[in-house]
Amino acid sequence: MVNNAERTQTPEPDRPGDLLNLIRTGRARTRGELGEVTGLARSTVAQRIDALIEAGLVVEVGGAPSTGGRPPSLLGFNAEAGVILAADLGATHSRIAVSNLLAESLVETTAEIDINKGPDAVIGWLLDTFDRLLDEIGRPPSEVRGIGIGVPGPVDFARGMAVNPPIMAGWHMHPIKDAFAQRYDAPVLVDNDVNIMALGEYWVMEPKVDDFVFVKVGTGIGSGLILGGVLHRGANGAAGDIGHVRATSEDVVCRCGNNGCLEALAGGAALAGRLRESGLDAMGGRDVVRLVERGDEDATRAVRQAGRLIGQVLASMVNLLNPSLIMIGGDLARAEQQLLAGIREVVYQRSTTLSTTDLTIAVSPLRDRAGVIGAAAMAIDHILTPRAIDEALAGIA
Amino acid sequence: MVNNAERTQTPEPDRPGDLLNLIRTGRARTRGELGEVTGLARSTVAQRIDALIEAGLVVEVGGAPSTGGRPPSLLGFNAEAGVILAADLGATHSRIAVSNLLAESLVETTAEIDINKGPDAVIGWLLDTFDRLLDEIGRPPSEVRGIGIGVPGPVDFARGMAVNPPIMAGWHMHPIKDAFAQRYDAPVLVDNDVNIMALGEYWVMEPKVDDFVFVKVGTGIGSGLILGGVLHRGANGAAGDIGHVRATSEDVVCRCGNNGCLEALAGGAALAGRLRESGLDAMGGRDVVRLVERGDEDATRAVRQAGRLIGQVLASMVNLLNPSLIMIGGDLARAEQQLLAGIREVVYQRSTTLSTTDLTIAVSPLRDRAGVIGAAAMAIDHILTPRAIDEALAGIA
Repeated sequence: MVNNAERTQTPEPDRPGDLLNLIRTGRARTRGELGEVTGLARSTVAQRIDALIEAGLVVEVGGAPSTGGRPPSLLGFNAEAGVILAADLGATHSRIAVSNLLAESLVETTAEIDINKGPDAVIGWLLDTFDRLLDEIGRPPSEVRGIGIGVPGPVDFARGMAVNPPIMAGWHMHPIKDAFAQRYDAPVLVDNDVNIMALGEYWVMEPKVDDFVFVKVGTGIGSGLILGGVLHRGANGAAGDIGHVRATSEDVVCRCGNNGCLEALAGGAALAGRLRESGLDAMGGRDVVRLVERGDEDATRAVRQAGRLIGQVLASMVNLLNPSLIMIGGDLARAEQQLLAGIREVVYQRSTTLSTTDLTIAVSPLRDRAGVIGAAAMAIDHILTPRAIDEALAGIA
Repeated sequence: MVNNAERTQTPEPDRPGDLLNLIRTGRARTRGELGEVTGLARSTVAQRIDALIEAGLVVEVGGAPSTGGRPPSLLGFNAEAGVILAADLGATHSRIAVSNLLAESLVETTAEIDINKGPDAVIGWLLDTFDRLLDEIGRPPSEVRGIGIGVPGPVDFARGMAVNPPIMAGWHMHPIKDAFAQRYDAPVLVDNDVNIMALGEYWVMEPKVDDFVFVKVGTGIGSGLILGGVLHRGANGAAGDIGHVRATSEDVVCRCGNNGCLEALAGGAALAGRLRESGLDAMGGRDVVRLVERGDEDATRAVRQAGRLIGQVLASMVNLLNPSLIMIGGDLARAEQQLLAGIREVVYQRSTTLSTTDLTIAVSPLRDRAGVIGAAAMAIDHILTPRAIDEALAGIA
């Protein structure tokens, strides 16, 4: 019987990987502190730290104030012990980075590339870009420790494949990981764009808000759920898909084939389409924002109303999940005054009193960079789990 | 920086409480197996097991097949090392039990008591009932290890108080725990009725389905969310409240003060009300089920339509959470053919393809007993966390 007690326990660290996490998060800075926090014998701590130092993951960074005798040396996480390849692939716009083990970009670039060129063309281009960026900063491919990739469509996370993506022609069930796994000796993680944005925002958030929902309002609409401090992906990696929740009983056909979906009413593409019908020049969400910034009344009204519709769906989500933070990102979030006003208006009216007691609704601070930071964070989280570290150290020994 | 890696790690057990969990869940049955699974030294395992045996939580239950030499003794979790008091308080109907440490009832009773009599009357009655049940099975109050209580309204779990409950007159912010904490030397946990039902179903489920939603369709409508194997309560303990999600734009006022809530349309009270308007004799959900069982067409149609409305809200929830199991309980679930047909019809139509790939929608197997088992399970999970066990053993030593 597996039960909650086991799953919710706070583990008392007792492995090299656990010690690494204590150092990485600043909860213990010396061998002595590690001994106190873990209750491990001095000799055990010393032995394990030696292994982490040998593996290059921990470095001695100077002396700490002594409590008598020789000053203990301060231990630091060596964020430069390898590099991470990170990509946030959008429909037409991508951001690529090589980062250190704290998800800090060492080099970063953006590019316009149409995801509909298909997996062979896009992945080939991405491999070339990674190689070029590594070359720019003088780090060899052998230093790559992990690869994180976000794509603009539903992903079966366990298999790392897009499943019936509405805007990624040719990507359905394509084994994205393979090409990268062949080129680099490192794990490859693939997830959808909104999940990596949520991970990116959560990575930099301080202090952490453990029940947190990230909502992307771009061409389409989606969300990433951090629940109890963990990204909730669901049984098939499909969690967070609020774009195809029914938001009206009106007859508005969505690209997914269903009727009245939120995205078909309040997504950037839908808004642009409606403004074009009114004779305005708007090809996508960014044009809508530009019109709002210029003070266009139709565009302003449209974004405010989109906010209300999104607010309706988020009100249900607040009742269901009771998060303490909803963060709005994506192109439309740039029209934040209008969009957030509409969202707040409906959420605070429609959600239950208890569930909105401590609720904050805010705009994404990382904006366009959330995805690429999250892609790196996803890879780092994977390679630095205590278990992964232990296995890596066992390989060295 | 606290991150996912730390939170999602599977801890390698290294404390008495961890050893207890290995024994309790059958993952290790002998001192030798415990050593293998944990990597702990033989002497360390022996010492910790001695402490658990002294505390009465572990017993030697006989010999295991030997691999040579003296046969190792099999270790068992002693489910009789204390008792749990469990109560599932409903609006008018309650179920009370004294159980062992596996949430198996040693004695169990049901009673009709109106929750609106208020906290003093109901809690006084519950204390008397617990005493009487303990007396019946000859266990003294000193053997009570934990107390779990479910109530029919929103609960701030951390504080153990009902918050603005719509049907519990006088209970708002009443310190429910206090009276029990004064009488028994054991922790008291209070949660809403639907969360304890979800916990009860999850406790007996084998194999466990880790992304699982329990939906109660009774007088009102609510849900309990097991996500990643953990009950998700949200920032204020308000998670799972689907009864007050907007399900229609029609002008139907809900008892919560809002308009068009699911509960005001598809809950047992709402259905009974509408059937009374048609001249039928229905005071609540159970009467509606009785009418359906007798083949009444109006009642059958009403339940089917209620299923569709619930299905609409669940379709959004499936898109959002991507669970692999939705379990329907509560009085209306007795009309399962009609209710589930309506629910399935809409969920499979309205949810995205990926999110319904592995989705099962089924009726609660525990039925009326889910709550009381879950109330016991909640208390057991709390008192048998490794940390709680360690603290208890430290108290003994």
